[in-house]
Amino acid sequence: MKVRAAVVGYGNIGKYVLQAIAASGDIECAGILRRSLGGRDTAVIDGYKAVTDISLLDQVDVAILAVPSRMVPEYARLFLSRGINTVDCFDIHSEIAALRSSLSPVAVKSGAVGIIAAGWDPGTDSIVRAMLTGMMPEGTSYTNFGPGRSMGHSVVAASKPGVVKALSMTIPAGEGVHRREVYVELEPGADPEAVADSIKCDSYFINDETSVTVVDSVDALDTHMHGVKLERSGSSGCTDGQRAEFNMRINNPALTAQVLVMAARASMRQMPGCYTMIEVPVIDYLPGERETLIKQLV
Amino acid sequence: MKVRAAVVGYGNIGKYVLQAIAASGDIECAGILRRSLGGRDTAVIDGYKAVTDISLLDQVDVAILAVPSRMVPEYARLFLSRGINTVDCFDIHSEIAALRSSLSPVAVKSGAVGIIAAGWDPGTDSIVRAMLTGMMPEGTSYTNFGPGRSMGHSVVAASKPGVVKALSMTIPAGEGVHRREVYVELEPGADPEAVADSIKCDSYFINDETSVTVVDSVDALDTHMHGVKLERSGSSGCTDGQRAEFNMRINNPALTAQVLVMAARASMRQMPGCYTMIEVPVIDYLPGERETLIKQLV
Repeated sequence: MKVRAAVVGYGNIGKYVLQAIAASGDIECAGILRRSLGGRDTAVIDGYKAVTDISLLDQVDVAILAVPSRMVPEYARLFLSRGINTVDCFDIHSEIAALRSSLSPVAVKSGAVGIIAAGWDPGTDSIVRAMLTGMMPEGTSYTNFGPGRSMGHSVVAASKPGVVKALSMTIPAGEGVHRREVYVELEPGADPEAVADSIKCDSYFINDETSVTVVDSVDALDTHMHGVKLERSGSSGCTDGQRAEFNMRINNPALTAQVLVMAARASMRQMPGCYTMIEVPVIDYLPGERETLIKQLV
Repeated sequence: MKVRAAVVGYGNIGKYVLQAIAASGDIECAGILRRSLGGRDTAVIDGYKAVTDISLLDQVDVAILAVPSRMVPEYARLFLSRGINTVDCFDIHSEIAALRSSLSPVAVKSGAVGIIAAGWDPGTDSIVRAMLTGMMPEGTSYTNFGPGRSMGHSVVAASKPGVVKALSMTIPAGEGVHRREVYVELEPGADPEAVADSIKCDSYFINDETSVTVVDSVDALDTHMHGVKLERSGSSGCTDGQRAEFNMRINNPALTAQVLVMAARASMRQMPGCYTMIEVPVIDYLPGERETLIKQLV
């Protein structure tokens, strides 16, 4: 029996989630949930049933929340309270622990499982950071992102009054410091200064050096490629000079969607509650038989 | 209350395990177990109580097996059957799944936890391999070791008749292929050809190109530094061209010992049974309060 996953949201990530579900052998799409379908309750999108209310879909085991981070808490709470597992790629690092604490009792009460912050950072990078911290308990870690488009930051920049489209590029400045280069297309008559201020003052941007540039076409600049270099050096026991790094160069929404699908699978294998990715055994993210995976991967 | 760990074996790894225990804040050494203490039952080694039978130590929560891989199954079975958790760095990849299957019922019966193959490969590298396989379900992985001393291979080479000391260096030859350069000090009158044959025919060496060189002093060549480059490239969903790598340059016994201590800690947090590292949530390997770890690492 395949796991039945509903895809909530049909933006950039949602489309890649549908591809990752289709490429999996063990998960099937139960349908797409959108806020609006042009006045109708149901429709067909890309061959999948689309609805405005999840109760219109047959048997949903897990809802994959492909929505902006700021909408995640509300959606996760709603579905978890109905006994439907949820996974999301909530990316506001400073709010993850609080989100987990607030969702956990909801999930426990209804017998559901939520896995939050299940993208690549937070997400799979968090697994590497935690593992390296265990391997070198005293040491220093740096997470260097980019160059690449930050989806979360782009969505926030695009949400500002006067902005039609936005692209926020993350540029690594070394040792975990980053610059943000934001490119915006403006509505006619919008004030570039006011737009720049509203972006720079947003909590997503306020701690980083940020430049805002008005352009004619954001699409002409856009890229899905992103990367990370995660470094740790330190001591194992009392032996100094240990050093490890994790590097990726990836299509960002494709990897995010794939990790959401990993988390959707893993959600079926946990006890009720709300988890971050470091709280779930890595083997639970993978399809296939346990003994075979151990033979192949350990 | 600190976790009380007995260190079984007082060779290279055992000494580093004692250091990693001392550097931890949450684990204490319950004593050292050796096969022989020069005819006595107990002694003091480096300030720790040393015994020849684990029943002579007060309260042992977990036995850290710092013994050669080929002795692990016997020791693990013995301690698990007495209800004592065990962790080991068993490194014979092809036998890990079978070892897990054979120890699991023993552990379940006595209510103990065994975590096997808990070094860096197998071990923490396995976590990375499994995670990357989930992130790029279709793709190719390569694990490139070294250059560095393989402890497992060195112990096997040193066990051959006529060999006084041995050092087996692992040299990466690209795409997961390795050469083995074995350096041996011989007993007077030992036949170099016979020694070389017995090493090359051992199952540890038979699949790799292996050279055996007789030297006057193995110690003069020895190093604890080792490394790995673990690569995977493939597709997330239907998006090709994803690429990640994990690199380390480390003191080998120091990291192995640190990972054993991580596993000892995690063993206190699992249900009875026998586990490989990919079956344990990464957060369970770390000391400290769960919520704090999530804030710091996710």
